[in-house]
Amino acid sequence: MNEERAKAKFNVRELTYLLDGDEKQTLLKERIMEELERDPLFKMKDVHDLTKAQARERAIEKYRSMLHHLQNESVDNFKKRMEIVSMVDPGFWTRFGVHYGLFVGALQSNATAGQLGYWFEHGALGMNKFNGCFAMTELGHGSNVPGLETTATFDEAADQFIIHTPTLTATKWWIGGAAHSATHASVFAQLIVKGKRYGTKCFVVPLRDPKNYNLLPGINIGDIGKKMGRDGIDNGWIQFTHVRIPRGYMLQKHTKVSRTGEVKEPKLQQLTYGALLQGRVAMVVDSGNTSKKALTIAIRYAAVRRQFANSRSGGVETKLLDYPIHQRRLMPLLAQTFAMLFTGSEMNLMYNNMMVRLDGAREGDKDLDEVIEALKETHSTSAGLKAFCTWNCLSTIEQCRQSCGGHGYSAYTGLAAMYQDFAVQCTWEGDNTILTLQAGRYLITSYREAAKGKKLAPGVGYLNKLNELIGKRCPAKSPEAILDYGVLLEAWQVVCANVVKAAALEFEQCLARGMDQDDAYEECSQSRLYAAKLHSYGYLFNRFADGVSKLEGNLALVMRDVCLLYGLYTIEENAGAFLQYEYFSPAQMDFIRSQVNALCKSVREQAIPLVDAFNLSDYVVNSPLGRKDGNVYVHYFNQVKESNPQGEHPYFDRLIKPLIHRNANTDEEDADDDEQAGLESDDEGDEE
Amino acid sequence: MNEERAKAKFNVRELTYLLDGDEKQTLLKERIMEELERDPLFKMKDVHDLTKAQARERAIEKYRSMLHHLQNESVDNFKKRMEIVSMVDPGFWTRFGVHYGLFVGALQSNATAGQLGYWFEHGALGMNKFNGCFAMTELGHGSNVPGLETTATFDEAADQFIIHTPTLTATKWWIGGAAHSATHASVFAQLIVKGKRYGTKCFVVPLRDPKNYNLLPGINIGDIGKKMGRDGIDNGWIQFTHVRIPRGYMLQKHTKVSRTGEVKEPKLQQLTYGALLQGRVAMVVDSGNTSKKALTIAIRYAAVRRQFANSRSGGVETKLLDYPIHQRRLMPLLAQTFAMLFTGSEMNLMYNNMMVRLDGAREGDKDLDEVIEALKETHSTSAGLKAFCTWNCLSTIEQCRQSCGGHGYSAYTGLAAMYQDFAVQCTWEGDNTILTLQAGRYLITSYREAAKGKKLAPGVGYLNKLNELIGKRCPAKSPEAILDYGVLLEAWQVVCANVVKAAALEFEQCLARGMDQDDAYEECSQSRLYAAKLHSYGYLFNRFADGVSKLEGNLALVMRDVCLLYGLYTIEENAGAFLQYEYFSPAQMDFIRSQVNALCKSVREQAIPLVDAFNLSDYVVNSPLGRKDGNVYVHYFNQVKESNPQGEHPYFDRLIKPLIHRNANTDEEDADDDEQAGLESDDEGDEE
Repeated sequence: MNEERAKAKFNVRELTYLLDGDEKQTLLKERIMEELERDPLFKMKDVHDLTKAQARERAIEKYRSMLHHLQNESVDNFKKRMEIVSMVDPGFWTRFGVHYGLFVGALQSNATAGQLGYWFEHGALGMNKFNGCFAMTELGHGSNVPGLETTATFDEAADQFIIHTPTLTATKWWIGGAAHSATHASVFAQLIVKGKRYGTKCFVVPLRDPKNYNLLPGINIGDIGKKMGRDGIDNGWIQFTHVRIPRGYMLQKHTKVSRTGEVKEPKLQQLTYGALLQGRVAMVVDSGNTSKKALTIAIRYAAVRRQFANSRSGGVETKLLDYPIHQRRLMPLLAQTFAMLFTGSEMNLMYNNMMVRLDGAREGDKDLDEVIEALKETHSTSAGLKAFCTWNCLSTIEQCRQSCGGHGYSAYTGLAAMYQDFAVQCTWEGDNTILTLQAGRYLITSYREAAKGKKLAPGVGYLNKLNELIGKRCPAKSPEAILDYGVLLEAWQVVCANVVKAAALEFEQCLARGMDQDDAYEECSQSRLYAAKLHSYGYLFNRFADGVSKLEGNLALVMRDVCLLYGLYTIEENAGAFLQYEYFSPAQMDFIRSQVNALCKSVREQAIPLVDAFNLSDYVVNSPLGRKDGNVYVHYFNQVKESNPQGEHPYFDRLIKPLIHRNANTDEEDADDDEQAGLESDDEGDEE
Repeated sequence: MNEERAKAKFNVRELTYLLDGDEKQTLLKERIMEELERDPLFKMKDVHDLTKAQARERAIEKYRSMLHHLQNESVDNFKKRMEIVSMVDPGFWTRFGVHYGLFVGALQSNATAGQLGYWFEHGALGMNKFNGCFAMTELGHGSNVPGLETTATFDEAADQFIIHTPTLTATKWWIGGAAHSATHASVFAQLIVKGKRYGTKCFVVPLRDPKNYNLLPGINIGDIGKKMGRDGIDNGWIQFTHVRIPRGYMLQKHTKVSRTGEVKEPKLQQLTYGALLQGRVAMVVDSGNTSKKALTIAIRYAAVRRQFANSRSGGVETKLLDYPIHQRRLMPLLAQTFAMLFTGSEMNLMYNNMMVRLDGAREGDKDLDEVIEALKETHSTSAGLKAFCTWNCLSTIEQCRQSCGGHGYSAYTGLAAMYQDFAVQCTWEGDNTILTLQAGRYLITSYREAAKGKKLAPGVGYLNKLNELIGKRCPAKSPEAILDYGVLLEAWQVVCANVVKAAALEFEQCLARGMDQDDAYEECSQSRLYAAKLHSYGYLFNRFADGVSKLEGNLALVMRDVCLLYGLYTIEENAGAFLQYEYFSPAQMDFIRSQVNALCKSVREQAIPLVDAFNLSDYVVNSPLGRKDGNVYVHYFNQVKESNPQGEHPYFDRLIKPLIHRNANTDEEDADDDEQAGLESDDEGDEE
């Protein structure tokens, strides 16, 4: 490891500050990592041997510690703490986040100021006799929120809503915190007033008596039980049977129902979607963070693990990291992680700017069109990035796991649970496939609008210069001239312009064949997905290159290689598109492949310093293979021994003895009678 | 479901017989599935909530049932039983297979006939006071068997070997059955006689006293503990400290050590590798079988699950299976499953022929060269196929899981555990990446031999006609003419010839730059992997097309679409290569993409009948989403309820109450005082 660290051509600390934001953020992160490590409630070394029941109890125990910090530090510091907790214990993070993220988030998005104040006073702010959950999805309905079946019928006489689960498939399903934690739920249900349906709205419904957690009348709750991962969270199902709540428990920031049953709907439906974005942006960042952790393990292990000696090494085996194929497995993933981290920071800024503008928006505002245009772009960009970044991260974890060989299958090396915990990110907060289709639909719409002369938002600005891009070929005169950000950015723009155009033409052909818009969009869904994929990868490279171009000195030199590797590797991975539209020739593509090899080699030299710059403590990494000191075998062996203390055989007498002694019609073993065990007798006769 | 079944254009039963071999095999499978389902020891419905300890005890309980059948049915029937058990309970299958597959397999490969007889008599045949394990891998050594560190030193005075673990990294690691089950191990260790090392050989070492399972002197064993999956198997680690065994416990079929320490080595080292192949071939078949199970779940669920209504459906939501994008997600995987099943059958035949020839081989045989050539081809082909089929299967499981949306994350729907259990197949019995490099090395060697005029084995025969293939373009005059097996087979041959040639030239350039062979092979490893990938996919299509071409009638019509989908989809997935070598033009590639869409639509029409033809019983599928009757929600809800019976709150008093009542400085909740919950007071002031 020291040998690897001595190779650093840049100031590791400088890169850490860049990734974290600045020195102050790094110091804060380090303080929080240390606090968590020393907090006995946050013990993580033994998590792999906990049962589901134990994991759930541990999660509740951690609440104490988190609530203490919530009440004693700034919101920004607490957000940073949550970001680190999400890497340390994703199951607990989800469970804790259900109240403060989802439930309170639903209040913030849907409640009037007075309603928000009411629920905060009644315990939602400090979790006093209160714990909220978020009851949106149903057994039969996930992505289709407008199709939810649960009903909320206004009873004018009583001035109440009646919340009801009319069918089995209307059962609220997957509700985090419902099984054991929550006193209240924000329930999404069909508003029905005077027999008329007004669509899905949000209602606060009390579930349990906070004194004893007995279920309230009409509430039926069960435990969803065992999941692929995140055992610390108690997902549940909920059925409502004619549950009555006061009218004021409907959150009425947007749609309002008066005492006499008048329903007043908002003019700007779109504005209600702004808040959905936050989750998506957070998942781009989380994909980068989780990839950091996975690569810290895989790359440090690869710098220590040796396998196979070659003819000139005098019996010393070669480090995995020195094998070109191992560099090929891990270095592009390392580059991709940086691309996600740079892009995540950018998205966060974009999101915050968006929210400031949205909060200030009023009906009749002059710049409302521009706000809505910006919202659409952020909405679509974040949809595509959420999907491809979570897919990339899941795949990174699995590739890191496999790159550790057999040891990747051990629970104690950490990558297995990381996979199982992360997998849900591809489905929740918008199923990835559906999000890619949304993004693809936006690209087709943008293309068609651009064709009519509309100036698009910057992220899709390339669709305003189609004439220039379509049919363009790489202008590089020599192979080396390809290794230029300008060329690569243009390459992505040309290919994206072509695939978006192809998708849009396919869509228009469907319309011309007489399909309606919905059917036409479905029909060209594969092309939408493909367009969204290339657009998202192009966007990631663009943001990464932009960030790197601002750097200076040695760090800039190293990061330029990393960024170039990312750009060329993604082109190689999508070679079909670049050759299809003939931006690159086959010979140029050959050169790109060879350059990916060369860049893997050069990034490999800086791999340990780059991973060190992620600055995750051994506690956060929580894997003996990813230990900073590189003493992997001793830590691994000790962890396996500590986790599995030796004792009496657990079931010899009861299960094994009756089995292997079941035909005891011979005497005790007599192997010693014939010491050479069948060898001498036929030593001659068995030659081959 | 009935509606879907009515669409069948072929005799479902006929396809089942084809996949199983014949009607007799199908009936046998059905009998075994029923026996397992009725066997209380093989209860599987509750497995997702078992702890590791419970899963391990369950596994031992199942031994009783399996041993009964082993002693009372033919070997062929028992093999079929094991194949089904591998789908029902992979953890148990592995544990049981350790003795009869790995330990007995090691005896069969390495013991003389006399030694084999000796160990069979001493309990290895009937598992009488005997249970074997297979101690090859070490903490620091996986794929590199010649690099194992454990030593076996001959003590001539005592006529014994001393088995010893000299370092921490020499600890035997991952040894299935070592933690609790095994009495004996087949230990791979460095043979040292009179100070000279002879490489890795196999020794039988007693571990425990069968009477009480106490560890024998010098044996130290621990539990490896929690893994990603296959909890039913008790993997352990073993350290030997100067453990003495009789000389005859070294298995001496190949290398022999005499009483006086004379070492006689075999002339034909290669022949010892034949037995390794069986595991690889089994994993191609297993990849097909496991994909069957995953797709049965995902496709049946997609035929029932509805989501989103369109403008013309009058509120009825659309079946997932009717969405083009969902067809795109699942139909190519279905086609790939058939490709693996057809190829697996072929490989089995090839393996059996190989073994017959190998068993008959003698030094000096005239056809020995041919036998060795055939061995090399099978060895290389099976290496590549093992790698790509297990990767494909793992990816299929994950894609099936994600295609079930949120429900794929529930343990009870079965796909999560299937992933966790299957993942190990990418690493064990040869790490996939290393196997692809072996396959790639063989392709380079074959290319160079062909260049010297050698006639190659049929699987790589295309390298004998390079002049004809290199530079060839698709001769189809119309787009439709591409949809022809002949064209597609040639397309694969042309592309494979090109990538193998490119890899071989890269290798030769490395030699020309002065590298030795080993370094040159490492340097072009990415090209080796790429060549192996395309060769393997081409091989799969070739075998599938060959199998389908023998069919007749309606079944042939349906399977031709499935096979064409597979061929075109894999070309689309590897479009970069087909465009790089210009076999297809960009316009032809566009046509291929559109045909994949069209074939997904047409195969979707037969999807339920095709899945029904897999003929897996509800018991084997063990997922409410994959139920044959399609009543998925009721079965799912019931399973969740049964698996998580409601009772007292498990930790309210102890953990939740102190938490949410911690700041009890206010009175009891008083929400009822203000029924409209903050609404009325600011109803006016909060307009937007």
